[in-house]
Amino acid sequence: MLRSCVYRLWTPGVLCGPLGGASPPARNSWPLPRSYSSEVAHVDHSLPNPSWSKDMRLIFDQFMKKSEDRSWKRLPSYKFTSSKRLEEAEFRKGETTFYLPFLSGHYRWRSGRAEFDAKPVKEEPLSQARLFPRSLEEGLGFEYAMFHNLVENRTVCILQGGPYLQGIPGFLHGGAIATMIDSTVGMCAFITGGAVMTANLNISFRRPIPLCSVVVINSQLDKIEGRKLFVSCNVQSVDEKTLYSEATSLFVKLDPKKSSP
Amino acid sequence: MLRSCVYRLWTPGVLCGPLGGASPPARNSWPLPRSYSSEVAHVDHSLPNPSWSKDMRLIFDQFMKKSEDRSWKRLPSYKFTSSKRLEEAEFRKGETTFYLPFLSGHYRWRSGRAEFDAKPVKEEPLSQARLFPRSLEEGLGFEYAMFHNLVENRTVCILQGGPYLQGIPGFLHGGAIATMIDSTVGMCAFITGGAVMTANLNISFRRPIPLCSVVVINSQLDKIEGRKLFVSCNVQSVDEKTLYSEATSLFVKLDPKKSSP
Repeated sequence: MLRSCVYRLWTPGVLCGPLGGASPPARNSWPLPRSYSSEVAHVDHSLPNPSWSKDMRLIFDQFMKKSEDRSWKRLPSYKFTSSKRLEEAEFRKGETTFYLPFLSGHYRWRSGRAEFDAKPVKEEPLSQARLFPRSLEEGLGFEYAMFHNLVENRTVCILQGGPYLQGIPGFLHGGAIATMIDSTVGMCAFITGGAVMTANLNISFRRPIPLCSVVVINSQLDKIEGRKLFVSCNVQSVDEKTLYSEATSLFVKLDPKKSSP
Repeated sequence: MLRSCVYRLWTPGVLCGPLGGASPPARNSWPLPRSYSSEVAHVDHSLPNPSWSKDMRLIFDQFMKKSEDRSWKRLPSYKFTSSKRLEEAEFRKGETTFYLPFLSGHYRWRSGRAEFDAKPVKEEPLSQARLFPRSLEEGLGFEYAMFHNLVENRTVCILQGGPYLQGIPGFLHGGAIATMIDSTVGMCAFITGGAVMTANLNISFRRPIPLCSVVVINSQLDKIEGRKLFVSCNVQSVDEKTLYSEATSLFVKLDPKKSSP
C-alpha cells in the first residue's frame, strides 16, 4: 500500500523520487513514503483487464516471467494525483530521507541561467485532476504497463493504444506516441536520478502505428553528465521486426538546494 | 457542411490535403471534398463552451477580430473520424482534383530508402475511434481553437489544458503539450504542403505549464526543401511574457505516385 502511493507519483515531466547519485539503487531500495494520507482509491491500472488483446497479455506475461528473479520489476500505475494530499509526503531511499516540497505546488528550478517559481492554479480545479495517460476509460485510451531493470538501467513499456488515440484514421496520433515515450523515458530517468524534469524530447517517427495494436517502448539510460541525464528509446512491434519510432531525451535533476519553496 | 468534412480530416501525423507546391494557397482555395457521406454528427468543438475561462475567451475573441479581414481564418475541429467513410472522399484544390487513397487504410510512403505499406486494424475497433485531442469530454481535456494566416504561413493554437491532462500535480503532462504542438505544426505543414507525415518532432521544455491555464502555440513554416517542410513553434503565456516550450519539426510530403494502394 505504501509502496503503491509512491508509484502514483511517478509521472513524466517533473518526477519525484530519490535525490541520489547516478548508480542504480540496490534492489529493495525503492523509495517509500514515510507518511501519507489519501481519500482516493488506489487502483493499479497496469494490470490486465478485459480490453487487453492476446498480444498485450502475452508480452505482459513474458515480462512478469522475467520479474520472477527480481531483475525486472513491474511498476504499478494509478489514475489520480492530488497536490493537496501530496504535501504530506516525504520519501526515504536507503538511509536518506528527503522531502518533495515542489509537490505542494511551489518549487524553484534552475536551468542554466534561468530560475523561476512555478505555481499551479488554485486547488479547486485540481480536485478533478487525473494523470493524463490514465485519463481515458478502460480500453479506450492508453492501456500500458511498465517494467524496470535496475541493473541495466532500462525501462520497458508495453502499450496498447485504444480507439480514442486516433490521429489519421486507423493510426495512433503522434501526440499519443509522444505521451507514452515521455512517460517511459521519464520513468527511466527518475529511477536513476530522482527528482528530474524533462528538458528535451526529440522523436523521429519512422512508421505510423496501427490503432489498437501492441507496441513495446524500450528505454535506456545512456549517460549522466552532472545534473543531466540522457535517455534514449525506440518503439517496436512485439515481434521486434518493425521499428515505429526512435527518441532521445534530456532530463535535468532538480537542485535540492533550490527545490524548497 | 462540405467544408466541415474536410477540416475533420486535418489531423497531425499524416494529413490529407492539397498536393500542391510550396506557395501558400490563394484565399478561398481551401480543399473541398467532392463527395462525402457520413452518419456522424458534425459538431465543431473549436467554439467557446462554458468550460472556457475568461482568458481563453479573450484570446479567442482577439483572433476572431483578426479574422474579420480574412487574413486569419479559424479552423473548425471535429471529434470523430471514420476510415470507412473517408474512402469515399476526394479533394479539389483550385483546378486540381486529387484522391487520398491512403485514407482508406492502405498507403505507401517513401522516406529516404524506406518504403512500406501501412495497414490499420480491422474496421470494428475503428467504429469507436475519436480524434485524440478531442477524446476527452468538454472542459476536462484539450480545449483549443486554431487560426491560420495564409499569407504568413502561420498557424496559432489557443489552448486551455484541463484537469485530465495532469503530469505532476498542478501542471500539464509533457505528452499533452507534445500532442498540441504536433497538432499545430502539423496543421501548419498541411495547409501549405498538403498530404504530409510527421518525420521528426524536437521539443525543448522551458517551464512547466500550470493546469487549467491558457497558452498560445505559435507555429511558423520556416522553409521547404524538396518534399521536406520545416515548421517551428513556441508555446507562450497569453501575455507573451512567459516562454513555456519551443519546438522544431520536420514533415515529409507523401509522394502521390506512391500513395496509391
